[in-house]
Amino acid sequence: MGSTSTELPLTRASVLAAHGLIKPHIHLTPVQTNTTLSTLASTPQSPETLKGTRWEDQEPARPKIKLFFKCEHFQRIGAFKVRGAFHAVKRLIERDPEGLEGVRRRGVVTHSSGNHAQALALAARTFSIPAYIVMPSISTPSKIAGTRAQKAFIHFSGSTSQEREAVVDKVIQDTGATLIPPYDYVDVILGQGTMGVEFAEQAEALLGKEEKDKKGKRLDAVITPCGGGGMLAGNAVALHGTGIHVFGAEPSFQGADDACRGVAAGERITTVKTLTIADGLRTPLGEHNYKIISDPEYVQGLYAVTEENIKDGMKLVLERMKCFVEPSAVVGLATVLYNEDFRKMVEREGGHEGWNIGVVFSGGNTTIEAITKIFAPVNEE
Amino acid sequence: MGSTSTELPLTRASVLAAHGLIKPHIHLTPVQTNTTLSTLASTPQSPETLKGTRWEDQEPARPKIKLFFKCEHFQRIGAFKVRGAFHAVKRLIERDPEGLEGVRRRGVVTHSSGNHAQALALAARTFSIPAYIVMPSISTPSKIAGTRAQKAFIHFSGSTSQEREAVVDKVIQDTGATLIPPYDYVDVILGQGTMGVEFAEQAEALLGKEEKDKKGKRLDAVITPCGGGGMLAGNAVALHGTGIHVFGAEPSFQGADDACRGVAAGERITTVKTLTIADGLRTPLGEHNYKIISDPEYVQGLYAVTEENIKDGMKLVLERMKCFVEPSAVVGLATVLYNEDFRKMVEREGGHEGWNIGVVFSGGNTTIEAITKIFAPVNEE
Repeated sequence: MGSTSTELPLTRASVLAAHGLIKPHIHLTPVQTNTTLSTLASTPQSPETLKGTRWEDQEPARPKIKLFFKCEHFQRIGAFKVRGAFHAVKRLIERDPEGLEGVRRRGVVTHSSGNHAQALALAARTFSIPAYIVMPSISTPSKIAGTRAQKAFIHFSGSTSQEREAVVDKVIQDTGATLIPPYDYVDVILGQGTMGVEFAEQAEALLGKEEKDKKGKRLDAVITPCGGGGMLAGNAVALHGTGIHVFGAEPSFQGADDACRGVAAGERITTVKTLTIADGLRTPLGEHNYKIISDPEYVQGLYAVTEENIKDGMKLVLERMKCFVEPSAVVGLATVLYNEDFRKMVEREGGHEGWNIGVVFSGGNTTIEAITKIFAPVNEE
Repeated sequence: MGSTSTELPLTRASVLAAHGLIKPHIHLTPVQTNTTLSTLASTPQSPETLKGTRWEDQEPARPKIKLFFKCEHFQRIGAFKVRGAFHAVKRLIERDPEGLEGVRRRGVVTHSSGNHAQALALAARTFSIPAYIVMPSISTPSKIAGTRAQKAFIHFSGSTSQEREAVVDKVIQDTGATLIPPYDYVDVILGQGTMGVEFAEQAEALLGKEEKDKKGKRLDAVITPCGGGGMLAGNAVALHGTGIHVFGAEPSFQGADDACRGVAAGERITTVKTLTIADGLRTPLGEHNYKIISDPEYVQGLYAVTEENIKDGMKLVLERMKCFVEPSAVVGLATVLYNEDFRKMVEREGGHEGWNIGVVFSGGNTTIEAITKIFAPVNEE
C-alpha cells in the first residue's frame, strides 16, 4: 500500500489506502459520455455569445474536447460527501485506543446543514456511532428531515459561525464527540480523492473500448467544482504524478471565486459572502485545501463562471444528459463550455489531438421547487 | 437464431434476431436499483392516502418489492424509440430487392411530432437514407429543431390525422418512400422488445452479485408504460415463455386508459382524446399491439394511475433517483407505488418472498420549462 500517512503532504498512496477502506460503503458511480456535449465543447462560441464578456472581440477558442462525466449525483445520499465521511469515521475507529467501542461511546459531531451532515450521519449510523449534527434553526425543513432520516441527533443553533461553534463546543463537552469538519480535514480530503482514482480507471476502460480513438487511452485532465476545496484537493492528491492535469471551477458571483482570487494573490481568502445559485460552493477554501490547491504541482489552474453559465450548463445536463444534478455540480462543465481562458488553454495544450476531459458532477441534492425558482422567467431575488 | 418471422404471431426468437441487428446502433442502457424506492414500494400506503380513491377504507396492500429500473432515458435521442426505428430500417434494407441503394433512392416517411420522428430520422441518417417527417405546423419549435438536427426533411401539415395522412400520401407519391409508423408495425414492436431481453439479463446479473439475496436470481415481472402499445407488446413477446410476468401501465386521465378499458370490454378502443401530462401515452392501442396485449398469455395485467400519482412518481424519480425523465416514463413506477389493485396482486403472487419488479423508464425528453408548468402550485389548465 505504500505510505498511508494522513499528515500533509498527502500522497496518492494514502488516497488508494482510503479507497480500500471505504469501497464496501460507497457506490462505484458510473462514468458517462455524451456526444452532444462533447460536440458542443468542441464548437467555438459565437462572437455574439462573447459580447459583454471580457473576451468580447477576441477570436473564440477552438479546443478539441471529448468529455467524460463522473456521476456522483448517483452516489449514496446523492453526493460525493459520503466518501470523506466514511473515511474519516473509519480512521477515527482505527486510531481510537478502544477502537469502535470508544468511538461509539463518544460519537462524532459536525456543523453543516448540507450534504456533509447527511453523509456523516449515514457513516456514523453504519457503525452504530451517535452523530450530532449542529444546524441553524432556520435550515430548510427538507434538510432537517433528511438528516433526521439518518437517525442523527440534531442540535439547533443560530446562523452565524460563532453561534454554531458554540453549540458544537457544548456537544463536545457533554459527549466527548470528535469533530469531523466538512472539508478542511485530512481524512475527508483523502476520502474525496477516491473519486479521482475511480474516474481515471473508468475513463481508461471506456477509451480502451473505442478502437477508432486515435488520441490514446486516458484522461488528459479532470475538472471539479471548488467550494471549501476538499474534493478538488483530494482529486489533486489522487492524480498527482499520473500526468492527468487537475483544474478547479468556481462561481464568480459576489466573490464566490475566492480560490481563484486567493491563489492569484498568494494568500487564502477567509471570508466569502455570496448567494450564488451554486449553494454548495459558497464557502471559502479551507487551510489544508489552500496549501494543496495553491501548489501548481497539484492544481494546474482555477477558473470561474457566471450564474448564467451555470444555468445554461444545468439546462444542458438535465435536458440533454437526463441527469438531475444540483447547480454546484455543473460548474466544471460550465467552465469547459463557456470560460474562454480555459478553452484557449485546452486549444493550446491539447492541440490537434485534443483533450479527454473528465468533469465531476458532484451531487444531485436539489428539488423541483428549487429548480423552478432558479429558472423562473422573472428573477425575484 | 430460430424463427425470425416478422409476421404475427411474433416470437421471442424474432426479438433476439432484432437485437442482433440493432445492437451496434443503440446504447445498452443501464439498469439501476434504488433502496429508498424499493423500501417505499414495500411500505403499505397510509389510510389517509387512500381516502377519496376507490380503495378507501380497504386494508392497504403489503407487497414485498425490490425494484429494478431500465434507464431508456439514457438511450440515444433520449428514448427507447430508436430500437424500433433502427430495426424497421434494417429490415427494410434487407427486404428491398435492390438493398440499401433502393431504400436510399426512395427514403422513409412517418407522421409523428415526437420521439419516433427523431428516432427514425437518426436511423435513416445512419444509412444515408432520406427521412421525410410529417409534423403539424403547430408543433413546438424544440421538436421541429430536434428533428431538423437529425437532417430529416420536414413536411408540415394540419393538426388532424386526416390532414397528416394526406401529406404522408403525397410524400409517398412523390418519392416512393416507405411509411414506418410509430408503433403499430411489426418490426417496430420487435425492436422495442429488445429492451426486455437486455433488462432480464442485466437484472439477473445484478441479483447474482447479491449473495445475501434469498429470493432468487431474476425478475418476477416487468411493467412498462402503454400508449400505442409498441413497447408493451414488444416486451411481452420478448419475455413470453421466460416465466417473467409482463404488465402495462396507463394514465387514467380523460380516458387515456384505453388499453385497460378495451381489453376489459374485449374490443379495441380506437379513439382517445386526453391531455394527460404523460403526453407520450395519449394515443390509443394499435391493432397489432391490441392483439398481443389483450392476450393474457402475453400481458398479465393492465393498470391505470391518476395525474397526481404520475406527478408524485416523477418527483421521486427526479429528486431521489436523480434521473431526469418525462412524465410518460414514470407511469409504471406510479402503478407499483400507488395502484392498490397492482399492489394487492403482488402481495398475493409474491407472498412472503416478494417480487423483483423491473420498471421501464421509457424516456427523458422533457424540459425544465415543461416540468415547471407541471409542478406549478396553481394549475392554469
